[in-house]
Amino acid sequence: MKILVTGAAGFLGRQLIERLITCKGLTDKNGQQQAISQIIACDRVALEGISDPRVEVVCGDIADRHWLASIIDRQIDSIFHLAAIVSGQAEQDFELGMRINVDATRQLFELARAVGNCPKVVITSSVAVFGGALPQVVPDSQVWMPQSSYGTQKALNDLLLADYSRRGYIDGRSLRMPTIAVRPGKPNQAASSFVSGIIREPLQGIAAVCPVSPQTQLWLLSPEKAIENLILGHELDATALTQGRVINLPGLSVSVQQMLDSLRNIAGDNVANLVRLEPDQKIEKIVNSWPGDFEATYAKHLGFRGEQHIDNLINGFIKTLK
Amino acid sequence: MKILVTGAAGFLGRQLIERLITCKGLTDKNGQQQAISQIIACDRVALEGISDPRVEVVCGDIADRHWLASIIDRQIDSIFHLAAIVSGQAEQDFELGMRINVDATRQLFELARAVGNCPKVVITSSVAVFGGALPQVVPDSQVWMPQSSYGTQKALNDLLLADYSRRGYIDGRSLRMPTIAVRPGKPNQAASSFVSGIIREPLQGIAAVCPVSPQTQLWLLSPEKAIENLILGHELDATALTQGRVINLPGLSVSVQQMLDSLRNIAGDNVANLVRLEPDQKIEKIVNSWPGDFEATYAKHLGFRGEQHIDNLINGFIKTLK
Repeated sequence: MKILVTGAAGFLGRQLIERLITCKGLTDKNGQQQAISQIIACDRVALEGISDPRVEVVCGDIADRHWLASIIDRQIDSIFHLAAIVSGQAEQDFELGMRINVDATRQLFELARAVGNCPKVVITSSVAVFGGALPQVVPDSQVWMPQSSYGTQKALNDLLLADYSRRGYIDGRSLRMPTIAVRPGKPNQAASSFVSGIIREPLQGIAAVCPVSPQTQLWLLSPEKAIENLILGHELDATALTQGRVINLPGLSVSVQQMLDSLRNIAGDNVANLVRLEPDQKIEKIVNSWPGDFEATYAKHLGFRGEQHIDNLINGFIKTLK
Repeated sequence: MKILVTGAAGFLGRQLIERLITCKGLTDKNGQQQAISQIIACDRVALEGISDPRVEVVCGDIADRHWLASIIDRQIDSIFHLAAIVSGQAEQDFELGMRINVDATRQLFELARAVGNCPKVVITSSVAVFGGALPQVVPDSQVWMPQSSYGTQKALNDLLLADYSRRGYIDGRSLRMPTIAVRPGKPNQAASSFVSGIIREPLQGIAAVCPVSPQTQLWLLSPEKAIENLILGHELDATALTQGRVINLPGLSVSVQQMLDSLRNIAGDNVANLVRLEPDQKIEKIVNSWPGDFEATYAKHLGFRGEQHIDNLINGFIKTLK
């Protein structure tokens, strides 16, 4: 099997590729498990530090049609499309967000269609597609009402993926991810960046700012479960997708206060005291428009799983530090 | 006030322009009623038969960026964007549907944004954005799950309009129209074409085919109310749009059987017997994916109105024949 991963040098992309090179194989469109023969790791910057000979690192601009066309051929069985402009940046730079988050995705679908072998295409969507008046726990039937350009762009992708799949051009699956925490690495321009930051930074002795109220309810998923769910999203047979191609993943509903309490319990006062509350209205407005809890009935029925306790997310990150 | 109408030679476009030239004026973005000084009636074919000197007829391809740019200037206060590829045709010709129903709409929004005076933009959406498992009566909070490329394309427009409005590029309002019946004129390639056809043709002594089961539940609006609602959609102040820019309009929920019974009551057996039942699975599949009844709570609160009885729709059409 030949797999394409976009956004390969990003945090999820790298972890996905690390998982793929250790797994026995993936299920192809005929329902057969096949060994992975090649992984095209595509990003703007080179994915480094992975030496498996099956991984081919390619660099370019995913919005460049000709470059993208040079990568997608009939041999590609499956695509994990993870490349994206994050929420804060997409809000600041509307054109960039539309170009990378929408136009490049559509181009990818078009090229897959042109090649004509109906590859499996797994993309990530976001809870940022929701907004407006929302019930406490969001059902799968909840209308999308994005309050950000990022959320809009993710919803546009979801619709395109569903129609390209319905028409038999691709075999698409969009996984609507909770906020992933605790992410390794550095803060980024996502409005949700602080969610990882208030755990990751203190655990490494660095001060962190929390820009939202401690009462803010968040919908979280660990990196480990995110990767597991991406693989499951690929593995499911298309016939199982009876309620559509866009799937609200399960997650864990916790308040910022519960996160900080858990950090204090696990790592002590000196660590927890490194978090400073400093409300930022711009970030609060975006984050507060995202729902804090979901039913995720369809996803659970399909076998997707989230964590049961906030301690797991924090302990999971602590393990990566050792 | 200078108004642009796209799809001007279409059935709704023509009726809208006829209404605009007889009205006292429209409300501008400062909440002031202004007389209409100019109407740019834009379509692929020329709008004919309207002699008001304020109406300027222009012909071109709305997907042609340069042509569209030549029409949109700072003087345009309001845009009614009605140009579209109908459902059946958009399903048959995917590229054409995407080009006219999505790319041209986005181009229109982009040009309006570039001009920079934040015009009011009224577009029409469709119940075809809904599908999948649906409650008997669809609430405003119902998720979109299009089962056709047309429905997908309308939902894409709705998302774009909402985000362009949120960013202050345009002052958009998307009116999600029930199936409009009874349309004058000829059958078209819309999957819903028969809805008007089974009333319009028999009333003119012409046989008509009903391609769906008599139990099929439809969500209808008369042309007259559609135009009234388009005008109201324009007139509303942006501050009233507290639950978003995309509005499920009220309509009338009736079965095909109720339509045929009403036709029989009003026009007699000889007329009603001109309708022949001849199921067409392709059309049934599309039409059955559309909900037959809506709450439309938000729209009713905003003052939008539908009809109370199927007889009104049929009698309304009979009046136009005299």
